Amino acid sequence: MSSVLPKDISIAANTIRFLSAEGVEKAKSGHPGMPMGMAELGAVLWLRHLRHSPKHLDWMARDRFVLSNGHGSMFLYSLLHLSGYELSVLDLQSFRQWESKTPGHPESFMTPGVETTTGPLGQGIANAVGMALGQKILQGRYGRGSFDPLDHLVYCFCGDGCLMEGVSGEASSLAGHLGLDNLVLVYDDNEISIAGDTDLAFTENVAQRYQSYGWHVIDIDGHDVEAIDAAYSEAKAHKGQPTIIVAHTIIGKGSPNKQNTEGVHGAPLGADEMEAAKKNLGWPLDKAFHVPAETKALFSARAEELAKEYDVWNSQYHDWKSREPETEKNLQAQLNMEIAPSLEQDLLANLPDGGGVASRKLSQQVLQSAAVAVPSLVGGSADLEPSTLTLIADSSDIQKGEYAGANIRFGVREHAMGAIQNGLAYYGGFIPYGATFLCFLDYMKPAVRLAALSELRCLYVYTHDSIFLGEDGPTHQPIEHIAMMRAIPNLHVYRPADALETAMSYASALRRASGPSALVLTRQGLPAIERHAGFKNEDVARGAYTVLASDGEPELVLFASGSELALAMEVAQGCGKNVRVVSMLCTELFAEQDAAYREQILAPGAKRVVIEAASTFGWQGIVGGSSEETLLIGIDQFGASAPASVLKEKFGFTAESILARMQEKWS
Amino acid sequence: MSSVLPKDISIAANTIRFLSAEGVEKAKSGHPGMPMGMAELGAVLWLRHLRHSPKHLDWMARDRFVLSNGHGSMFLYSLLHLSGYELSVLDLQSFRQWESKTPGHPESFMTPGVETTTGPLGQGIANAVGMALGQKILQGRYGRGSFDPLDHLVYCFCGDGCLMEGVSGEASSLAGHLGLDNLVLVYDDNEISIAGDTDLAFTENVAQRYQSYGWHVIDIDGHDVEAIDAAYSEAKAHKGQPTIIVAHTIIGKGSPNKQNTEGVHGAPLGADEMEAAKKNLGWPLDKAFHVPAETKALFSARAEELAKEYDVWNSQYHDWKSREPETEKNLQAQLNMEIAPSLEQDLLANLPDGGGVASRKLSQQVLQSAAVAVPSLVGGSADLEPSTLTLIADSSDIQKGEYAGANIRFGVREHAMGAIQNGLAYYGGFIPYGATFLCFLDYMKPAVRLAALSELRCLYVYTHDSIFLGEDGPTHQPIEHIAMMRAIPNLHVYRPADALETAMSYASALRRASGPSALVLTRQGLPAIERHAGFKNEDVARGAYTVLASDGEPELVLFASGSELALAMEVAQGCGKNVRVVSMLCTELFAEQDAAYREQILAPGAKRVVIEAASTFGWQGIVGGSSEETLLIGIDQFGASAPASVLKEKFGFTAESILARMQEKWS
Repeated sequence: MSSVLPKDISIAANTIRFLSAEGVEKAKSGHPGMPMGMAELGAVLWLRHLRHSPKHLDWMARDRFVLSNGHGSMFLYSLLHLSGYELSVLDLQSFRQWESKTPGHPESFMTPGVETTTGPLGQGIANAVGMALGQKILQGRYGRGSFDPLDHLVYCFCGDGCLMEGVSGEASSLAGHLGLDNLVLVYDDNEISIAGDTDLAFTENVAQRYQSYGWHVIDIDGHDVEAIDAAYSEAKAHKGQPTIIVAHTIIGKGSPNKQNTEGVHGAPLGADEMEAAKKNLGWPLDKAFHVPAETKALFSARAEELAKEYDVWNSQYHDWKSREPETEKNLQAQLNMEIAPSLEQDLLANLPDGGGVASRKLSQQVLQSAAVAVPSLVGGSADLEPSTLTLIADSSDIQKGEYAGANIRFGVREHAMGAIQNGLAYYGGFIPYGATFLCFLDYMKPAVRLAALSELRCLYVYTHDSIFLGEDGPTHQPIEHIAMMRAIPNLHVYRPADALETAMSYASALRRASGPSALVLTRQGLPAIERHAGFKNEDVARGAYTVLASDGEPELVLFASGSELALAMEVAQGCGKNVRVVSMLCTELFAEQDAAYREQILAPGAKRVVIEAASTFGWQGIVGGSSEETLLIGIDQFGASAPASVLKEKFGFTAESILARMQEKWS
Repeated sequence: MSSVLPKDISIAANTIRFLSAEGVEKAKSGHPGMPMGMAELGAVLWLRHLRHSPKHLDWMARDRFVLSNGHGSMFLYSLLHLSGYELSVLDLQSFRQWESKTPGHPESFMTPGVETTTGPLGQGIANAVGMALGQKILQGRYGRGSFDPLDHLVYCFCGDGCLMEGVSGEASSLAGHLGLDNLVLVYDDNEISIAGDTDLAFTENVAQRYQSYGWHVIDIDGHDVEAIDAAYSEAKAHKGQPTIIVAHTIIGKGSPNKQNTEGVHGAPLGADEMEAAKKNLGWPLDKAFHVPAETKALFSARAEELAKEYDVWNSQYHDWKSREPETEKNLQAQLNMEIAPSLEQDLLANLPDGGGVASRKLSQQVLQSAAVAVPSLVGGSADLEPSTLTLIADSSDIQKGEYAGANIRFGVREHAMGAIQNGLAYYGGFIPYGATFLCFLDYMKPAVRLAALSELRCLYVYTHDSIFLGEDGPTHQPIEHIAMMRAIPNLHVYRPADALETAMSYASALRRASGPSALVLTRQGLPAIERHAGFKNEDVARGAYTVLASDGEPELVLFASGSELALAMEVAQGCGKNVRVVSMLCTELFAEQDAAYREQILAPGAKRVVIEAASTFGWQGIVGGSSEETLLIGIDQFGASAPASVLKEKFGFTAESILARMQEKWS
């Protein structure tokens, strides 16, 4: 290890070390190893390179900082505190406590200055790729003349765990392909994982792997301040490729008895070792959460520099705005995620009103109109464009050097797709969509969950939504997936039944600002739906509405979604009873309606039949009432490979079969 | 492209081409591109290298063949047909039809000779890693003296899609780490994906990437028969590293107008192009599913060679058996997955009967006994051994060159862990377990689903099972995960409440031969549970049973699982009513009980309260009855970072809070 440690940076680094370790100590829980190991890497970045402004959290030209190894959260909180964000010593001392601004892992919605929610490993790397891509898209669209309003970098810190997770491989391969030279990944190569030496399971050559992805690789001693400084400068200057800095570090550096062991990864140092570490680094023993005067001065000076930088940018921005008013207006419109007020009308326009069209095909048409009405809409599929039908025809592909388009080619990388969508949403100005077969939602579940948790405005377009995709068989036929999504808090799931519902579902999903939405669409053609005379288009946005009205209070209500709505209508015709048919296209929206509307739709006194070609799990709770008075028609086993028409018969999705089951239950 | 195509292999390859393309044509659905592109690679492997026996499907020394690019299923079916497996021309002609032996994607349970269920991309590569690991473990344990009963290789064919998926990166990195030189991956490098050229999204250097993982790389023309032959020989001879053969191919080769385009990937050629292809390759136009006499002869000759090889092996095996009777017996015991009859007793022995112990800690103890009673049990965690407590103390680590142990170090690779478990289960002789935090089940969901579909005997040990893991916060706190597992067909989910339930859950899961089981365990200590006098240990295996008995028919039944069972007991004490408490530790097992038992437990006339620190989704259907008479106490929002004791209060998991909610609902 080099001993080139300029004293000021060294003290700042030790400040990060002790603020972090003491936060963990006080909480009696947390991860001191990473902050102590990456302290110099953090100090040099935040004191010499990172462009940001605690006073202007939404500064579009700020560098983005992502802590992919999110368990080292105290590292980030310490830096935010030192840099002047609204994060006091008291906040640091409330680490991991109820409603504190310093939760166990960084949560984008809890802490000023925290850009991304991280913790589940590998996600942050893919988020950073999404942010870097977002920057490139905006630059491609609005970069004009002599001033680039979005001139910044995206930095991402990560550990070996992030690199072991497949999602980081997927995202990094794509970042290399796209030539995202605005992305700098800093790898904390400390050779220790939770279970012990990384030798236990991780002996690949990371530098070579990243070269294979088309990245620029810099290898440094992660405690050598000048080497770190030079590496950041080199990364910033390097064009055409993303950069990974492989920084050799000592986990828990400074803790004399625990550094370089797994013992310092995820547990407090303990009082004795804390004292030993303080002695070791010449830190005052009698002070807790101590920030030396010289470190305060250093961060203040940096804050002043940055304030000036912001002012310069601001003035240049206004000059640019006066030179390029139209471009600036469009940039702001996208950043504000403006949506044409005519959205619903636009999406409904020119849709086929007859039957026989698959909802993925309807979605294709709706998506074209949506792309015009919502400039923030960008996205693509995981190498399934010809099947999910999600290309925006009037836009171009986003490729290396050509970033102005709206079509992202994710490759067969569902997990990275989801996490890159999150990165785009974090970046701002984007409503990103990602498409694949519903069954392969499984590959991207961790990212979907984080979108729901962090209230990200992501759209998922899941086609081939049931066994009725047919011949591809049970490996491709979703069964539990709709239930699984319905169980995720804050995710809205739409399963539209025809053109009108598809358009209105898109509109509702696009307007939803507080979380992600999934559109669940068929491979196969759908019959036309005829609605009762009193129907209004707005009814769709209530999540459930009456399609076929009964005369007065119904004796029987048939609930169905998507492709099964037409079947429910057919069943209704075969019922002698006073029957109502309800389209249950979004159970989450329905749950948000007032009690009166819910009761009116559910008709508590009636018998109920639910028809959905998916797991019945959860439906009893959705429709309420008693199990004796409810018949659930679904599929609680895996599907099979055969033509859809055969599967309909075999799995009992015919009016005859359902009528027979009703007869059996209630006669 | 080289023109070195020995005529016999060339004709065999064309036979594969047309059998496959005609299967797709007849089904009007499927993927001709891959079989036509990999025809020479398949013909050379199956005619000159692959060691197998259609008459002895369970031959332990057979080479394993995995088709990771499973959409090319007709390729495999064609080869099985030609090689003499029980797969007739009629079967080939029934491709993708109801209950045929030739489903759209290979399903291990449908077709003799199909080793793995594939289709979801990347899975097969990780399955193959698991198989190769399984072979190494058995060799490490039972390889004695001059004869290796398990001398074979594992071959895996894959496409660019498999390599883009993160799971293949995770598994390949681990395979390199473990030095699995019995594994040969054959990459169909045809530069075409579904959406078009792989240039759209996939420009990484695959050879370099695999070198970084520690693999041996061979680069060949995938239509040059001699080059292919040499590559297989080189791979077989190469020691200390797995091998990837990067084979440059032309997708759909032979189809004059569609080859080398995405149009031939996933759609029938069509009548005109089929005719053009036949003309192009000199194939008879008037015959369908044609197998030329010389090709028949070739495969017959190969079958004879292999039959002799089998006989030689068999005789050597019996010699070895007589020299090493004890070793052979142990090998057979493991292959038969024998379980000590005393399993339940063994697992229950010496368990703490007091409270205060976390179920992950109880599981640690049970696992030690299970490892003795069940030699097939091998496994590990995704770098969370110190937290999941899943190391087998009396066994050694499985590492490169040392494969006899039972502890697998998966690294932070949940997805590969799940898929490698599947590979071990497919290989035979293993009940593999994999451990991580419940929340990170998300990363491995695709593999769990395939285990359930293919009825694989895998065990999942999911610890940190609720918000009560505390300070790590919502990114680590499962909410929807138990519901999500319950919605998967054929997966059993156990959430034990104390030592007895933990032991009996393990026993039940270990004995389950028809599918995977998940054990859901706490981070935090659990209070002791006192059961009513009539309780018998076997009651646990019914999935739900009465813990606190009421006097006669209960007015109120409290259902709970895991850490909430003790809370339910506390609530019961605060109820004035005639109350019963039911432990609902495995809802799937409970659903399998006879109607009388189910009705007896559920007590249809009573009011019901369900308490589980997780999503309430699905519970109404599990306990039945009416929503008016049921109160669900769960968590339908994300958790928060705070000490568990605080979260208990805030999320209402106290007896007072629950009693108040009961009061509110029913007074």
